[in-house]
Amino acid sequence: MAQRFEHVRHPGDERDRLTCLDCGFIAYENPKVVVGAVVELDGGLLLCRRAIEPRANFWTIPAGYMELGETAAEGAAREAWEEAQVRIAIDGVLAVYSIARIGQVQIIFRARLAEPGFAAGPESLEVRRFAWEDVPWDELAFPSVHWALRAWHRTRLGPLPAAEQNPEEDARGMRGLGGGAE
Amino acid sequence: MAQRFEHVRHPGDERDRLTCLDCGFIAYENPKVVVGAVVELDGGLLLCRRAIEPRANFWTIPAGYMELGETAAEGAAREAWEEAQVRIAIDGVLAVYSIARIGQVQIIFRARLAEPGFAAGPESLEVRRFAWEDVPWDELAFPSVHWALRAWHRTRLGPLPAAEQNPEEDARGMRGLGGGAE
Repeated sequence: MAQRFEHVRHPGDERDRLTCLDCGFIAYENPKVVVGAVVELDGGLLLCRRAIEPRANFWTIPAGYMELGETAAEGAAREAWEEAQVRIAIDGVLAVYSIARIGQVQIIFRARLAEPGFAAGPESLEVRRFAWEDVPWDELAFPSVHWALRAWHRTRLGPLPAAEQNPEEDARGMRGLGGGAE
Repeated sequence: MAQRFEHVRHPGDERDRLTCLDCGFIAYENPKVVVGAVVELDGGLLLCRRAIEPRANFWTIPAGYMELGETAAEGAAREAWEEAQVRIAIDGVLAVYSIARIGQVQIIFRARLAEPGFAAGPESLEVRRFAWEDVPWDELAFPSVHWALRAWHRTRLGPLPAAEQNPEEDARGMRGLGGGAE
């Protein structure tokens, strides 16, 4: 079964679209939504050591692709269960990070445990509570994990401020428009 | 060119995926991101009367599907230009609304004019500044436009609070998890 998909410009459209040359099906390519949560526990936070690539063995917050049929918060709660076997209660939106070069938007929530207990899910080697002083900064999986942890630390259990946007990279929309994320 | 796509369960996956029965191509279906902005002008706000379905003739904020290669803020600025011919400066994230039944996540920014001037783009019949007292509540296109305008009005030009989530419907993640959107 050969796949013959190419990017084709269709009448009235402004962009090329991935199109099956055999049947004409258009596979629209859109940014994908990653949902995740910084989960507080006894003043510290939960991190998962990744069992899978990319960045296996590095630490991350529970996060993953949002699926159809769920809200962003439901997706974050599902990922927390899948990766850290933890039931979470969500406070609100902590951050919205756009990673344009990989077509990704991350919606990160601030959360705490709704029930006691956590454990490594199938995609994690280990789940551990870290005090802020013990966060393994050099072993975090992605820049956005750094950003989200720092955004969390600025407020911890206080009122949630405005959602942070990319503090370091890819905040082109902000810079280009003269606005400021912070 | 007949299209023979069906939902098929693939090995190791937890969900059926839209698959071409001829060539095996999998078209992953993910939630789509809508980006938009509540744009302030002289203490009032800009609304567009829609030229296209759905909800032609009804009023909306400038918003549309985020495209690959742009940040959420860039997408909102692009839509503001396309629909209201206005250059905006973005303050930050005003709201994140999940509409699970249609597989949509809306990221709504608070913005103001970066340059004077606005006009109807090709998808708008009319663009107008409304004072808060004159907002045509009965002629708004979508529930999320109601929500976003009210979220804007609660703070206007003050500091942005935490991003609002769905106040009325589809906030299942919030309710089910014991958290609170507001």
